[in-house]
Amino acid sequence: MTPVNGAWHLAARPAGIPQDSDFEWREGSAPAPADGQVLVRVEWLSIDPTNRVWMNDADSYMPKLELGSVMRGIAIGRVEESRYKGLAPGDAVQGLLGWQKYAVVNGASVTKLPSLPLPLSAHFGLLGHIGLTAYFGLTDIGKPKVGETLVVSAAAGAVGSLVVQLGKIMQLRVVGIAGGPEKCSRVVEEFGADACIDYKSEDLREALRRNCPSGIDIDFENVGGRVMEVVLERINLRARVVLCGMVSQYNAQRPEGVRGIERILVQRARMEGFIVSDYLPRAAEALKQMIDWHLAGRLKYKLDVVDGLEYAPQALRRLFEGTNQGKVVVRVSEE
Amino acid sequence: MTPVNGAWHLAARPAGIPQDSDFEWREGSAPAPADGQVLVRVEWLSIDPTNRVWMNDADSYMPKLELGSVMRGIAIGRVEESRYKGLAPGDAVQGLLGWQKYAVVNGASVTKLPSLPLPLSAHFGLLGHIGLTAYFGLTDIGKPKVGETLVVSAAAGAVGSLVVQLGKIMQLRVVGIAGGPEKCSRVVEEFGADACIDYKSEDLREALRRNCPSGIDIDFENVGGRVMEVVLERINLRARVVLCGMVSQYNAQRPEGVRGIERILVQRARMEGFIVSDYLPRAAEALKQMIDWHLAGRLKYKLDVVDGLEYAPQALRRLFEGTNQGKVVVRVSEE
Repeated sequence: MTPVNGAWHLAARPAGIPQDSDFEWREGSAPAPADGQVLVRVEWLSIDPTNRVWMNDADSYMPKLELGSVMRGIAIGRVEESRYKGLAPGDAVQGLLGWQKYAVVNGASVTKLPSLPLPLSAHFGLLGHIGLTAYFGLTDIGKPKVGETLVVSAAAGAVGSLVVQLGKIMQLRVVGIAGGPEKCSRVVEEFGADACIDYKSEDLREALRRNCPSGIDIDFENVGGRVMEVVLERINLRARVVLCGMVSQYNAQRPEGVRGIERILVQRARMEGFIVSDYLPRAAEALKQMIDWHLAGRLKYKLDVVDGLEYAPQALRRLFEGTNQGKVVVRVSEE
Repeated sequence: MTPVNGAWHLAARPAGIPQDSDFEWREGSAPAPADGQVLVRVEWLSIDPTNRVWMNDADSYMPKLELGSVMRGIAIGRVEESRYKGLAPGDAVQGLLGWQKYAVVNGASVTKLPSLPLPLSAHFGLLGHIGLTAYFGLTDIGKPKVGETLVVSAAAGAVGSLVVQLGKIMQLRVVGIAGGPEKCSRVVEEFGADACIDYKSEDLREALRRNCPSGIDIDFENVGGRVMEVVLERINLRARVVLCGMVSQYNAQRPEGVRGIERILVQRARMEGFIVSDYLPRAAEALKQMIDWHLAGRLKYKLDVVDGLEYAPQALRRLFEGTNQGKVVVRVSEE
């Protein structure tokens, strides 16, 4: 029995925020796995800002996606049929399964997920690429020291909300930046930031001055653009700018320049980009700690669950409209 | 006998390139040194792009200069009178002696220069802040590996021309960027770069593609602005951007933003600022090597000597007009 597949394909390169017409829904039989491959039923699809970058007509840290291809996406699913010796039916796996109900992929290209005392979706909210990005970005690039001041942009977002909590665990002063009073109150009440600035209603420069009286030692940058420029104005000597994302620029036809790079020079600061995949060999050290902290109630995650793969394009759009409440995941089928 | 002093004072904050009216020449008796101070006859004044930054109404890595003060500048001179036990008449010293013929400064604030088989002015052309900036910027921030590609902007300049040569000593492919055919031919013929791009007449993007076929591993950045943006487009995975100067922006009323910071993220690159004074404790290791290389004919320096302190304002202007031929120094009095 070959299952019926349904998939979102890249129909057009978006100009600005992706529109429905940039995607095309196609159905058909899932192919049978060839030797070395597995057939996976997708359960959870992760919706990430970087998905937008992949739609552009330019290579990034991955090759660009060709028009007509199944939309690229990180997903979790169950192996239904295996012709790869390392995986058996029923195994949970994570990888670039794409925006589709069933994926046929090389067994070696996916990661078998361990059995944990947590729902599978925790691999997107707490662990996986989101958790490792937060953990290694803060520890390895940010190199925090007790008592330093950490600013986190998009602090209510998937990565940001973990970084806020990790910052508190590491005994930093943590100041979030988020859009709107609801997000800001969650960043403080739920995630424990010392303060959170609503960039939509507050004067960011003045608010940073008030909330970072000793300047900024670490900027965990998820946003870029004007927010980043104002943060750079207050960085301290030898500050670290953890370049994790520049979501404000992903839909720009022509990205804006960043003013204030002179501050990096004058403050002998360091700005460094990183990609979570570089840290996969060291994943175990992070995951053990993060699971322990989570089970001890010190590290929470919040999922914004969208039910049904048909809503994936809208789900991606919400990231850029800022209307999501936590990490956006699409439930493609039941766990 | 108190000598007659003459000094340039900061008369106005420049808007753009400094004008003659931004400086005021004043004469008077040099004060007698107080306890712990020395009277120094200035011999060589170093003219540096950073002088311009000090004239602004904003602190940088040093406090801003107050209006009416003697213009700040790095200079070399001879002690004429000493009330500081570490220095005696006849000693050569270097420090922030200012744009003046005689300086009275705390003995502890200047560095006694060792006797070398080189003229005193070599402390500005080869050694001192220029040499240490080139050496530590390239080695400590750039972390070069044999065979990598190094791009140096302002490659015919004081720091740039040393970086080009150090890059060749360290077995890198070195591509300079400079303004005009004369400078470019000097960068290749005298300083040994593999190529030099004339950004004034060539298409920089196309020329970088041609001359850096394997991409760019290190950008030794002296210029900033548009030149830097085009260089960033070609940086390799884990490239290092050595943020040494952004001379294109020093006269701007409102500095331009730098586009392409996204490349730092995607390429997991590192951009880092540094200030030579941070490396003073490690100066000896650099100076010994650089003197050896110089005496072996492998590391040349070129001085552009301006005779007479009265021409110091024009000398500074030439840096921004790009008409200087090598490291600009003012001969204030005979060695």
